[in-house]
Amino acid sequence: MAVRSFRRRKSVGTAAENELIHKFWETNSWVCVRVAGSGSTKYPSPDLLASRGDKKIVMEVKIISDVKKYFTRQEIRDLEYFAQKFSAESWVGVKFLENQWYFIPTSELELTKSENYVITLIEMKRKGFSFEEMIE
Amino acid sequence: MAVRSFRRRKSVGTAAENELIHKFWETNSWVCVRVAGSGSTKYPSPDLLASRGDKKIVMEVKIISDVKKYFTRQEIRDLEYFAQKFSAESWVGVKFLENQWYFIPTSELELTKSENYVITLIEMKRKGFSFEEMIE
Repeated sequence: MAVRSFRRRKSVGTAAENELIHKFWETNSWVCVRVAGSGSTKYPSPDLLASRGDKKIVMEVKIISDVKKYFTRQEIRDLEYFAQKFSAESWVGVKFLENQWYFIPTSELELTKSENYVITLIEMKRKGFSFEEMIE
Repeated sequence: MAVRSFRRRKSVGTAAENELIHKFWETNSWVCVRVAGSGSTKYPSPDLLASRGDKKIVMEVKIISDVKKYFTRQEIRDLEYFAQKFSAESWVGVKFLENQWYFIPTSELELTKSENYVITLIEMKRKGFSFEEMIE
């Protein structure tokens, strides 16, 4: 049952990533790939890498059934390290169930008292970017 | 049987890609990821993406039991399109069984009379690059 539930979460995550990959390719100016084994390899790696040539993005993607999502300081640091190596911007993309996608650069994430980062639905409605805004 | 043989080829390919990923990370200056679903998605995508910041590489990786490997013009074109989007160099990495890895930029591949590209073991011994030479 645990395995089944893990598989289901994984497939929901993959479907979400694929949805974003299509959005990038549909622009006809961006290319985008999904990283294999992200979250399971021993090396830090983002979920997605996208590029238009003059602008590159590395991204963590989350589907959230709650109204709040935490990221550890290490997760964000790894993403920013990777972005720096690829001359890319680092973004987090979140989809709260039954809401649209919201995107935010990691530089705008706020550190909590417990030294994690948090994204809430309320905050993302206020300061999150749409897909179109992100790729401008 | 066909499925089993396909799975085996696939796992040999993945092991080869993982070997190269380790080589990149071991340098402590390069980062590298394997692309998910490469070869099965409808979008052109390389097997590997690697970057050191000032130099980026997109790569097709092949393990070859023959002494010769063909690439279609479209495969190489797709790889070069992707490279151009990522401001990267496009390379092909081949490992002929019981031989070392050889690497070659796609710009140095030779077009055959039938409009494909071909890589032979003899040629790679003459003009292929080692991993260390490629990442210099």
